Amino acid sequence: MYAASDLIAGLTLGLTIVPQSIAYASLARLPSENGLYSAFTGGFLYMLFGTIPQVSIGPTSLMSLLTLQYIGSLPDENKIQYLCLLTFLCGVVELLMGLLHLGFLTEIISTPVISGFTSASAVIIIESQIRHILGITIHSHGITDGVIELFNRIDHIKLGDTLLGVICIALLLTLRQLKNISCGKKVLKQFGWFISVSRNAIIVLLCCLTAYYYDKSGSTVPFKLTANVISGIPAPKFPTFHIDEGNTTQTSFETIKKLGNGFITIPIVAVLINVSIAKAFATAGTIDATQEMLTLSLCNMFASCFSAMPICGAFTRSAVSNASGVKTPFSNFYSALITIFALTFLTPWFRYIPKATLAAVLIAAVIFLIDVQILKPLWKSCRRDFFILVATFFLCLYFGVEIGLLIGAAGNLIYLLYLWARPRITREKCKNEYGEYLVITPDIGLFYLGTDYLYTYLAKIARQNRTKLPIAVNCCYFKSMDYTAIKGLSMISQDYKNDNQHLVFYNVCDFILNVYKNSDCKNIQFCGVNENLNEYLFSTEIDFRRSVTIPIMDTELQELGNNGQGREKQEVESLLRQENEKNIPVVDE
Amino acid sequence: MYAASDLIAGLTLGLTIVPQSIAYASLARLPSENGLYSAFTGGFLYMLFGTIPQVSIGPTSLMSLLTLQYIGSLPDENKIQYLCLLTFLCGVVELLMGLLHLGFLTEIISTPVISGFTSASAVIIIESQIRHILGITIHSHGITDGVIELFNRIDHIKLGDTLLGVICIALLLTLRQLKNISCGKKVLKQFGWFISVSRNAIIVLLCCLTAYYYDKSGSTVPFKLTANVISGIPAPKFPTFHIDEGNTTQTSFETIKKLGNGFITIPIVAVLINVSIAKAFATAGTIDATQEMLTLSLCNMFASCFSAMPICGAFTRSAVSNASGVKTPFSNFYSALITIFALTFLTPWFRYIPKATLAAVLIAAVIFLIDVQILKPLWKSCRRDFFILVATFFLCLYFGVEIGLLIGAAGNLIYLLYLWARPRITREKCKNEYGEYLVITPDIGLFYLGTDYLYTYLAKIARQNRTKLPIAVNCCYFKSMDYTAIKGLSMISQDYKNDNQHLVFYNVCDFILNVYKNSDCKNIQFCGVNENLNEYLFSTEIDFRRSVTIPIMDTELQELGNNGQGREKQEVESLLRQENEKNIPVVDE
Repeated sequence: MYAASDLIAGLTLGLTIVPQSIAYASLARLPSENGLYSAFTGGFLYMLFGTIPQVSIGPTSLMSLLTLQYIGSLPDENKIQYLCLLTFLCGVVELLMGLLHLGFLTEIISTPVISGFTSASAVIIIESQIRHILGITIHSHGITDGVIELFNRIDHIKLGDTLLGVICIALLLTLRQLKNISCGKKVLKQFGWFISVSRNAIIVLLCCLTAYYYDKSGSTVPFKLTANVISGIPAPKFPTFHIDEGNTTQTSFETIKKLGNGFITIPIVAVLINVSIAKAFATAGTIDATQEMLTLSLCNMFASCFSAMPICGAFTRSAVSNASGVKTPFSNFYSALITIFALTFLTPWFRYIPKATLAAVLIAAVIFLIDVQILKPLWKSCRRDFFILVATFFLCLYFGVEIGLLIGAAGNLIYLLYLWARPRITREKCKNEYGEYLVITPDIGLFYLGTDYLYTYLAKIARQNRTKLPIAVNCCYFKSMDYTAIKGLSMISQDYKNDNQHLVFYNVCDFILNVYKNSDCKNIQFCGVNENLNEYLFSTEIDFRRSVTIPIMDTELQELGNNGQGREKQEVESLLRQENEKNIPVVDE
Repeated sequence: MYAASDLIAGLTLGLTIVPQSIAYASLARLPSENGLYSAFTGGFLYMLFGTIPQVSIGPTSLMSLLTLQYIGSLPDENKIQYLCLLTFLCGVVELLMGLLHLGFLTEIISTPVISGFTSASAVIIIESQIRHILGITIHSHGITDGVIELFNRIDHIKLGDTLLGVICIALLLTLRQLKNISCGKKVLKQFGWFISVSRNAIIVLLCCLTAYYYDKSGSTVPFKLTANVISGIPAPKFPTFHIDEGNTTQTSFETIKKLGNGFITIPIVAVLINVSIAKAFATAGTIDATQEMLTLSLCNMFASCFSAMPICGAFTRSAVSNASGVKTPFSNFYSALITIFALTFLTPWFRYIPKATLAAVLIAAVIFLIDVQILKPLWKSCRRDFFILVATFFLCLYFGVEIGLLIGAAGNLIYLLYLWARPRITREKCKNEYGEYLVITPDIGLFYLGTDYLYTYLAKIARQNRTKLPIAVNCCYFKSMDYTAIKGLSMISQDYKNDNQHLVFYNVCDFILNVYKNSDCKNIQFCGVNENLNEYLFSTEIDFRRSVTIPIMDTELQELGNNGQGREKQEVESLLRQENEKNIPVVDE
C-alpha cells in the first residue's frame, strides 16, 4: 500500500524534477545534463538515510543562484571541475555541521530575514530570466545594470521568444490553478490535479514538439533552443583539488580560494531550507536535525562525483510530493529512476527545448517565492521585523544574497543585545507605614552590557533625589549576574554611601547573593527574596525585630500595573480570594 | 587656592610625564622627542575642553604598544609621516564617535576582557623591555619567538646594562612604597610622598649624571645610551595623506591602507581608557562621554600636527594627579609647560639617559597593570568571566592585542545571545479543583532565537504527555515578541490541536496580545494577565461564568520557589498578612 502511494508520488515528482533540473542548470549557466545529474544522485541516498518522506532532494532555484554567484565568473573550460569541488566541499561542511551539532546556527536566521532573502532571490532569478523570454543577450552583472542594459537593448527583442515565453508563463500559471478547481466528479478533479502538478513537463513537451516540427519542416525555428545534452550517466569521479588554469598549476589552497566563501554560505542555506521543509511537514518535534544534515552531506558528496550542482530539499517539489500522498522517502527512488530514464533515452529531444520555455518554467516557479502577503501583518504587528525584512530584501538585491542574509541576521541579533544594553526601567514613589521610598525596576536581567546604563540611571536618580528618599531596586528579573555588573553595583553603592543616600537591591536570588559573596566587591546592600525590605530601607529608624506585622509590599502591584503588566496583581488577587483550594505539586523533572 | 593646588599637581605630573614620554617613545621604537611632543600637545587642549580634573592626557603604554603594532614595520624613512597620519585619523574617528554618540560601543567590553587585555599588554611590554635591561639585541617579532631568541642569546648579556636595569627597577619599586610609609611627622610624610611620585625623574636624573660622569672622565660608558634628542618645539604641520615610498607615489587610499585597522582599534581603546578613568575619578554620573570623546579627538588632531603619538588619558598619571590634590583640568597646562621646558633646555642631557633606565621605568610602570588579584574572586564568583579573562589574555599575547580584545568581546556577547537562545525552562505538575495540569515557565522573553528551542521542548512534552493533561505556559517573562516567535507558537499550537491536547499561554501582556491580533497567525490560546487561566484550561468541562470563587494559582509559588527564586511567594505571603496598610502611589515619571 505504502509502495503504491510512493510510486505515484515518485512518478509525479519525476515529471516535475526533470524539466526543473534543466531550467535550474540554465539558471546557473551550466549544461542541462549537470542539472539532471543533480536530480538523480541525491534521491538514491535520501531514500536510504532521509527521515522526512516529503523532502524531495535535488537542484533548487536558490542553490542554482548561489552556484552561479560563486562559480559563474570562473573560466568555462574547467567550470565543471570547480562545480564538483564546490558540491563536494558543501558536503564536507554539512558533515562538519552535523558532527558538531551546529544545526542551531540556522536558528539565528529569523522568519523576516528568510522571507526577505527568498523574495530577493526570486526577484534576481526573474530578472535574470526575462532576457531569455525576450530573446535579448545581456552581459551586465548586478540587477541595476542588468535592468538598464535590458531597457537599452529593448529594440532587440525577438518576437518568437517573447511570444513563446509569455504564452508558456500564462499556461503554467493557469494550469497551476487547475488543482484548486472543484468540480463534481472525483476522477475529473484528480485528473485536473495531475495535469496541474505535471504542468512543467507538459509545457516543455509541447514546446519541444513545436520546435521539432519547425526543424523537420525545414524552416528555421523562430526561438532560441538549448544546447545539445550529453546522453547517459557519467562514470563517477572523485572531484579534484588541483585545478590547472591554462598552463599554471594551482595548489589546492589556491583552487579552493577561487570558490570564495561559497562552501560556507551554500551549506548554511541548504541546511536552513532542509530544516524548514522538515519542520513544515514533519510531525511536531520529530525532526532529527543532525540526521538531516548528515544525509544532506552524504547526498552532496555523492552528487559531487557525478558533476552535480549543490543539492538540497526543494519547497515546491516537497509540496507536490506531499499532495501526491507520499508515505516514505522511497519516493525519491522513483523520481531518480525517471531522471535516469530521461538521461538515457530522452536526451536527443532535450535540445529542442526552447530557452524561453525554460525561463518561463523558472519564472512561474519562483514568482510565488516573492512573499508579499507577509508585509501587511508584519507592518501591523511588528514593525521592526518589517524593516528587517525590507532591509534584507534590498541588501540581497544590491549587494548579493549572502551579504543581505548576513547583515539581516546580524541586525536581528543586535536588537537582542540592545535589549540587554538598554533595559526599560520603571520608577515609582511608594509609601508604607515606615515612610516613603522610590522603587526602580529594570525589566530584564543585568549583565555587563546594561551595567553602565543602570549606573547612569541610578546616578541621575541620586542627583534628583533631593529629599534623600531611600531607593529600592527591584531585581525580580535578575536571574544571574556577571562580575562587571556586580562591580558596577558596588561602584554606585559607594557613590550613594558617599552621598548619604540609602540604596537597596531587593528580590535578589540566592545565585546572585552567592556571586556577590565570593567576589571582591563591597558596599552593596542586597535584600534576598525571603528577607524584609523594610529592615534594609528604614533600618536606622525602627527596630524591626520587635514589630510583628510585616508591612504590605503593594508597590510592585502598581508599578507593574502601570507598566502594562499587572501580572503580580492577578496572582495576588486570586490568592486573596483563596478558599479551601488544594494544590498538590508533583515534582516532575 | 585652586590655582595653587593645580600648580603643585601640574609640577608633580610634569616630573612623571617627561621621563615616561621618553620611555613610551622608546617602546614604540620612535625618537624620544616624539614622545615629548605627545606629552605637551594634549595638555593645552584638555585644559580648555576637558571635564575631569584628574585626567592626564598624553602618551600611554597601551597607545605606544598599539602604535608599534601598526607602524612598527613601516619603513624608517617616513615612519614619522605615517605616525602623524595615524594620530590624525585616530582623532577623526574619535570625532565621529563623539558626533554619532558611539560612546556606548565601549560598553561591549566587560571588566574581565579589559583586565585580560591590559594584563597581556603589560606582559608584552615587559617582554619587549627585558632585552634592553639585558643589553641584548633581538630581531624576532611575537612573544614566543622573542623569548626563544632571548634564551638563545643569553650569553650575550651585557653586565653594565643588566646591573643598571636591575638596580633601577629595584629602586623604582622601593621608592614607590615610600608613600605608604607612615611616620610621625607630617612634613616627612609629605616629603616621602613627593620623592615617591617623582621617582621616575629622580632615577633618570641619577642615571644621566652617572653616564655624564663616565663620558667626561674619558672612559667608555658601560651601558647603552639613547640617541640624540632634537631640541625645541617643531613647527606645526598638517599631516599628509600622500606618503611616497622610495620612488613610487601612493594614493591616499594606499597610504591609509598601510596603517591597517589601527585608526579603528586605537580610538576605541583610547575612548575606553578615557571613559574608565573618568568613571573612576568623576563624581557619580557626571561624566559627559560625548564631550570626553570630542576633547580626545581635538587633542589627537592637534597633536598630529606636532608628530605626536596617539594620546589619551593615562591611569597611573591620573592617580598621581589625584593624589597631588588636583582641582581643575588646568593642571595639564603646568605639566605641558614643564615638557616644553624640558624640550627647550634639557635635550642635550637626554642623550645621557641609558636605555636600561628607560626599560626599567617602563617595566616598573606596567608591572602593576598585570591584574592577578582579580583572578581569585573571579574564579570563586563567576567562573565564566574567569575563562573569558584567561582566553582574552592568551589571545592578546599570541595573536595580538586587538584580536584578543575583539574575540574576548565577541565571546562575551555570544553568551548574552545564548541566554535568549536557550531559556531555562521549568516544568511542574499542578492540581486545583478543576483538575491537573502542567505549568511550563521559560525564564526569559521569547524572540526568534529561542523559538525553536521552546518549540522542540513543547513538542517533547506533547509526546510524553500521554494522559493529555492541559498544558499552561507561563509567559510572565515575555515583555515583547517578534513575528518569528508568534509564528512558532502558532505552529506548535496547531500541532497540539491536531493531537487534541490543550495548550494555553497565560500571563500574556497586552503588547504581545496586540502583536498576535495584528499578525496573520492563528490557533494560539493566549490568556491575558487579567483573565482566568482555568477558563482556558478546563473550558470544555465547566461553565466558569457561573462559578464565583476563583481558584488559587499557587502553582507559580512552588515552581518559582523550586527555581531558587520564590519571589512571588514573599510578595504573596506579605499580602496575606496585610493589615490596615496604606499605600499611596505617586506617579513620578
